[in-house]
This record gives sequence, C-alpha cells and structure tokens, in this order.
Amino acid sequence: MKKIGVADTTFARFDMGGAAVDELKSNGTGFKIIRYTVPGIKDLPVACKKLFEEQDCDIVIALGMPGSKPIDKTCAHEASIGLIKTQLMCNKHILEVFVHEDETDEEKTLAWLAEKRSREHAINCLNLLFKPENLTKNAGKGLREGFRDAGPLRM
Amino acid sequence: MKKIGVADTTFARFDMGGAAVDELKSNGTGFKIIRYTVPGIKDLPVACKKLFEEQDCDIVIALGMPGSKPIDKTCAHEASIGLIKTQLMCNKHILEVFVHEDETDEEKTLAWLAEKRSREHAINCLNLLFKPENLTKNAGKGLREGFRDAGPLRM
Amino acid sequence: MKKIGVADTTFARFDMGGAAVDELKSNGTGFKIIRYTVPGIKDLPVACKKLFEEQDCDIVIALGMPGSKPIDKTCAHEASIGLIKTQLMCNKHILEVFVHEDETDEEKTLAWLAEKRSREHAINCLNLLFKPENLTKNAGKGLREGFRDAGPLRM
Amino acid sequence: MKKIGVADTTFARFDMGGAAVDELKSNGTGFKIIRYTVPGIKDLPVACKKLFEEQDCDIVIALGMPGSKPIDKTCAHEASIGLIKTQLMCNKHILEVFVHEDETDEEKTLAWLAEKRSREHAINCLNLLFKPENLTKNAGKGLREGFRDAGPLRM
Amino acid sequence: MKKIGVADTTFARFDMGGAAVDELKSNGTGFKIIRYTVPGIKDLPVACKKLFEEQDCDIVIALGMPGSKPIDKTCAHEASIGLIKTQLMCNKHILEVFVHEDETDEEKTLAWLAEKRSREHAINCLNLLFKPENLTKNAGKGLREGFRDAGPLRM
Repeated sequence: MKKIGVADTTFARFDMGGAAVDELKSNGTGFKIIRYTVPGIKDLPVACKKLFEEQDCDIVIALGMPGSKPIDKTCAHEASIGLIKTQLMCNKHILEVFVHEDETDEEKTLAWLAEKRSREHAINCLNLLFKPENLTKNAGKGLREGFRDAGPLRM
Repeated sequence: MKKIGVADTTFARFDMGGAAVDELKSNGTGFKIIRYTVPGIKDLPVACKKLFEEQDCDIVIALGMPGSKPIDKTCAHEASIGLIKTQLMCNKHILEVFVHEDETDEEKTLAWLAEKRSREHAINCLNLLFKPENLTKNAGKGLREGFRDAGPLRM
Repeated sequence: MKKIGVADTTFARFDMGGAAVDELKSNGTGFKIIRYTVPGIKDLPVACKKLFEEQDCDIVIALGMPGSKPIDKTCAHEASIGLIKTQLMCNKHILEVFVHEDETDEEKTLAWLAEKRSREHAINCLNLLFKPENLTKNAGKGLREGFRDAGPLRM
Repeated sequence: MKKIGVADTTFARFDMGGAAVDELKSNGTGFKIIRYTVPGIKDLPVACKKLFEEQDCDIVIALGMPGSKPIDKTCAHEASIGLIKTQLMCNKHILEVFVHEDETDEEKTLAWLAEKRSREHAINCLNLLFKPENLTKNAGKGLREGFRDAGPLRM
Repeated sequence: MKKIGVADTTFARFDMGGAAVDELKSNGTGFKIIRYTVPGIKDLPVACKKLFEEQDCDIVIALGMPGSKPIDKTCAHEASIGLIKTQLMCNKHILEVFVHEDETDEEKTLAWLAEKRSREHAINCLNLLFKPENLTKNAGKGLREGFRDAGPLRM
C-alpha cells in the first residue's frame, strides 16, 4: 500500500494540511496518509525527508503560507531550495503548496485560495502517484492551482 | 539504443514537450524518447533525476514556461539551481528550455518562440549526444535559441 | 537520554542561547543540553553538524541576531541555506531562531523579542522531540514566535 | 601527463576557449588539452564534471559570456554556484572566466577583454597546476584579469 | 600537532593572509600553518577543501576582499555559500574573513580594517581550535571583528 505524507505548519493561517487530507480521502483509496506538522516552512524540507526515510512515504505534499514581508519571501525561497534538494536526495516528488499572504487582500479570499490550491495539488499528487497519464495529456495546457487556469496561448 | 527524456509541465501554455519530441523524431533515429509531465517547473528537477535513474535516460530536455511575476522568476531560479544539481548528481546533461511569459507581449509571438526554442534545443540535445563536434565548431559564435543569433562580436 | 544542542554566537547582542537553555530546563527533564558558541551566524551550520555528529545531539536550536545592513541580510540567507542543508544531511531538526536587528527600533524591545522568540522556539524544540502531537493540533493556527500570534484567517 | 580541460559555449560571442587554448600552448608543455563546447553557461558545470570524471582532467578553465539582461545575470549566478559545487565534488579547481556583455559598450573592447581575460586565466591555470608559489607571492597584490590590476591599497 | 590552513587571494588589495599568519604565530604554538593562495574568492571553497583533505588541516581561515560593484557582491555570495558547503562536507570550521572594498572610502582605513579583521579572526580560529570556552563566555556580547564591538543591547 502506498503512503502519502502531508507536511504542514503551525505558522500557516489556514489548515491547508487538513484540506489536502480531506481531498485525498475523497478521491481515492489504497493509500495511507501520514501527517507531520512543524513550526514554519523552513522546517518542511527535513520533515519531508523524515517522511520519506523514516515513515517510508512514496510522495509528500508540503503546505505553507509565507507572509508578505521581504524576509518572508526569503524564507519561502530557502524552503523551496530545500524542498527541491530533498526530492533529489530521495528520488521522490514533493508537491510544494505555498500560498503567499499577499496574493490577495481579503482574508476570506486568502482562505478560499489556500483551500482550493491545497485540494488541487492533492489531485496532482494522486495523479503523479497513480495516473501520470492524466498529467501528460494536460502538458502545455496552462493549468493553474488555486486561481483560474491561464489556458493555452491563443495562436 | 540511446534514451532521450522529455520533461515538461501542465503549467506551460504551449506544448513545448510535443514540439521537442517532433523535432527529435524529424532529425534522427537510433534513440527512444520517454516523456514525463509534471505540474510545474519546480517539479522538473526530480522528474529529470527519475528519467536518468529509473528510466535510464542518457540526456533530458526540460521544458517550462515561467510566468511574469517576481514569484515566477524566483521559481524559475529555484528550478534552474535544481536542474544543475541534478546534472551534477547524475553526470548527464539536461537541456533547460525555459520561455518566460514576459519575453514578448503577443501570445502569438510567445507561442512561436516556445516552439522555436524547444526545437532548437532538441537539435542541441542530438548534437550533445551524437555529434559534439557540431557544437565545438560553433564555439564563440553567439548562437541563440529562439530569437535570432547574436553572432560573433564585430572587431 | 535525549541530547539537545544549543548553538549561538558572540555576534548576537543578547544571550539568546542562555534564554533557550533556561526555558528548556524549566519545561522538562530527561534530556541533556550541549552548548556551542561560534563567532557569527555563518559559523552555525557546521556547528550544528558537529553537535549532531560529534556530540550525538537529537535536535539543535540555532540562535543568532543578524544586523540591519544588506550584507547582514545576505549572511542570514546564506546561514539559513546552510542550516537547511545540515538538517537534510543529518535527518534531524534544527530550530532556526534569528532576530533581525531591524525588527524593532528600541534596544529594549529587541532584547525582549530576542528572549521571547528564543524561549518559544525552545518549546517548539521540546514538542518536536517529545510531543509532536502538540504541533499537529496547532496546524494552520497562525502561530508566531516572539510577537503576537497572527491567528487563523477570519472567514 | 597532466590534462587541462577547456569548456566553453556556442552562446559566447568570442572564441574565448580558443584564446585559452592558444595561451596554454604558448606557455608550457607537458600537458594535454581537452576541449568541450556546450550551448550555454548553465551547461558548463556538468561539462566540467565530465571533463574531470570521464576525461580525467586535473583542472578546467570554464569560459562564457553572459548577456546584459537581468535573466542573464541570474543564469551566470546559477552557473557559478554549479561550478563551485562541481569543484567541491571533484576536489579540483575550475577557473571561471566570465565576461559580461555589459562590462563595456564597444564590441571591439569587449572582444579585447574576452581575449585578455581568457589568456590571463590560462596563466592562472598553469600556475595553480604547476607553480602555486607564483600565486602565493602575489597574495594581496590586487591583481585583476582583463582590465588593469587594481594594485595594493596605498597606505 | 594541529594544522591551520590560511587561504587567500591575489585579487585582494591587502595581504590579509600574511596578517592572519603573523597573528597566529604571535598567539600560540603547537600548530603548523599551511598557506594556499588562489586568484579570487570563488576559488576559495575548493582551496579550503583541499587544505582539509589533501593537507589534513583541522581548521581554515579564508580571506578575501570583494569589490564594490553588484557583480562583486554576487561573487562574495557565491563564495560564501561554497565555504559553508565545504564546512558541511568536511565537518570542520572555516573562518570567512571578507572585507568589502566599499566598507569605507579611504584606502588607508580599508587597509587598517583588512589587517584588524584578519587578526581578530585569527584569534577566533585559535579559540575554536584550542579554547572554545573563550567563545562561550562571550555568547551574546555583540562582538565584531574589525570595527568596534556593538556590545550587548542596553535594557
């Protein structure tokens, strides 16, 4: 049975991990979910590595909500570099689901976005794990997670 | 028989992977192509690593279309660092083919650019794999992929 | 018995390491604390690695106080990348506790912040080590270390 | 017999690799030169690694000419990080010889600079390999490659 | 007997390595010093790695003088990342001693700063190697190398 890790933070202002878990459960069976919560996004890379190596996960969804200040952008950048490095060390995918606090002005919209993006990446996760052909048929289609798809270029 | 990996994304707004595959097939034989589509450019490094280590590819073309916002530039930077790291871990070339959405204003021109750059890097890929002397004889010639060659400096 | 490393600097203008040690001791038993002081934050990554590999620590708190100039921000960025890399090499958590000199104008407030953030991360450290479920139940709750919690988004 | 790798690009607008090879040949014997040309500077790190590991080179000169746009500066930064990583993986020196297209306005001057810097780093390469004492005696002397030496500080 | 590496550059405009060596010799015995000079700061990481692995050094002081242009800042950043990586690969400290050409306007003051910072880090080096307790007792004391100590925050 496949194992899916869900790594999230206490820093985020929305339960993105909960949304991802719910979406995973609503869309499939035959896998086990392991949740791991850390303080902030910079703690996510090693959390994912532990999920791979100590919990034997096959794939991980890493969710976080960077703040709007320059230092927060730097943190997100450092976390992302670490998440990519982790994937290369483990040869496994991590779906990075970051929602930046300044992507929208309204708290309500931000919550909507955090939920939607988490859920859509949960689907990406299932596709990568069980149905990669679903991704291939959407190659170059301008898909977006959260906000509306950009769609293919009009020629 | 050599294996060429083609890694692309559902985020891109043009089927760059398809263009690369078509160009490869039009310009040679004696190799097998393996396609792998992921959600976004930050998923490309581990996708390439898997193509090398799980699919036994000899070289990979990694294609993506970063957006125009600052966060997109950061993502592209992170992906590029990861792609270089992957090459160093595997001792194999990855041709990075990124087309930035703000390289041109017109959707039509952007599509043209995405296709042209993908095809020209497919040729680079074949040269690196089968005819490295084609590259050596063009050393310092100011070649560009996509837009017009800059050409050698006028002295 | 678990071992907790506390790595700090002579550059910092407040004894953050001392605050962390005091908080650890006030909140638990059954662990040993190992202190390691280096000149600046860029010396922290290898200090943490030595705490893991030569002192057998299970987790490390790394504390520092970057200055307010652009070069200080760059140093902090380099240190953070190194701290994340260290965690990935050792498969163990490092709680990074950085207080930037320009987070507040008043020296007194800065000292208050340095102490509070160090103490709150000491609690995070104990939770990661002994009670990870304390973190999971706070997932997405908008917690902050030092200043007031942001709290969950209002929907 | 020592082996010196010369890695260059088709992107550069001057045959920097050719200049380096010529300078090496004019200044020594007892070594073999291996040339490897790739499309752009981001392809240089793995090219150097292959020169070390597959061609058994003892040192490599890596030459390129980054463009003047922000994206080109980012590429150069990524390539440099990769070149440093390569050196650390292989325990061997890579002389990075980059000439930025915006270091001067005149094409003619740029060509002069590209040639001069390539040749002066070829000498550095020979010194590192055969006469490290030549470098030690110039420690702190404010040497520059290409443009005029800055010289020691006037006290 | 302990071995201390001193890595410096021909690019620097002051003999920082010489100052460090002199300070080391004036403050202790029972160690051997190994000097290694490279062209620029980006050559320092692998130079340090060679000092550790080929010369068996226990610690290294890496000294350089980045210029004042944006490209010089980028070089210093790349070198720093490499120096941190080297430390993590070797589990040994490198004291990075960089003096930026724009830290002061006067050549004379810059020379003073380069000498002072090099000497003060030589003392840090001896403390890390022989008397780490000297650092611990100065934790959080706001020490600076070169310019005047900032001192602890006033509360």
